[in-house]
Amino acid sequence: MFKEILKKMVVDAPGGVGAVLMGYDGIAIDQYLPDMGDIDLQLVAIEYSNIVKEIRRTAEILGTGSLQEVTIKTERLYVIVHALTDEYFVALTLERDGNLGKGRYLIMRESPALCQALI
Amino acid sequence: MFKEILKKMVVDAPGGVGAVLMGYDGIAIDQYLPDMGDIDLQLVAIEYSNIVKEIRRTAEILGTGSLQEVTIKTERLYVIVHALTDEYFVALTLERDGNLGKGRYLIMRESPALCQALI
Repeated sequence: MFKEILKKMVVDAPGGVGAVLMGYDGIAIDQYLPDMGDIDLQLVAIEYSNIVKEIRRTAEILGTGSLQEVTIKTERLYVIVHALTDEYFVALTLERDGNLGKGRYLIMRESPALCQALI
Repeated sequence: MFKEILKKMVVDAPGGVGAVLMGYDGIAIDQYLPDMGDIDLQLVAIEYSNIVKEIRRTAEILGTGSLQEVTIKTERLYVIVHALTDEYFVALTLERDGNLGKGRYLIMRESPALCQALI
């Protein structure tokens, strides 16, 4: 059921290339990752899970409240990371000519369903 | 002259609370940080500089192209980090009820002036 939700996000987001439901320990629960040529999206998600963990820790230490979302824009991709629970997050990756706003909306729209399914 | 540009970003952005021009080594060149109660914005910028450095390294290793922008949303703040050169970035912080889109626009609008002033 996770995969259905992840697939819906990727398909509905213009420029969507993949989505992963993952623990902060870098282990994926499920994913929808159509092939993207020379970029290994699973590796991207694993690498970013470390960074998100670090950002979360920093936000808490600094008293800026718990982390909710991180958006990363590189030359080739957008990566949107959305915190779901204390242990899990969902990451949606878009092409640079994709629609970041729609991606953020979709990840927000589908998050309650993912949280529900996680319980 | 840096401070004037930084101040313009903060003042023009609804909910703007501070802006810092900083090296990836965590040393600030200049800043415009009106007091924000219990949150130490300079410390926020220093802590995030480490994370941005890490994201930049990761983006390059993964072949997703160089890092351009990171947006962090916590319970209390938005932090927008925009890469300027290989050594420097600018960070703009907004209240959570601020206008993230306007903040991103302003940081993009003022970045060429900051780059120019850095040379």
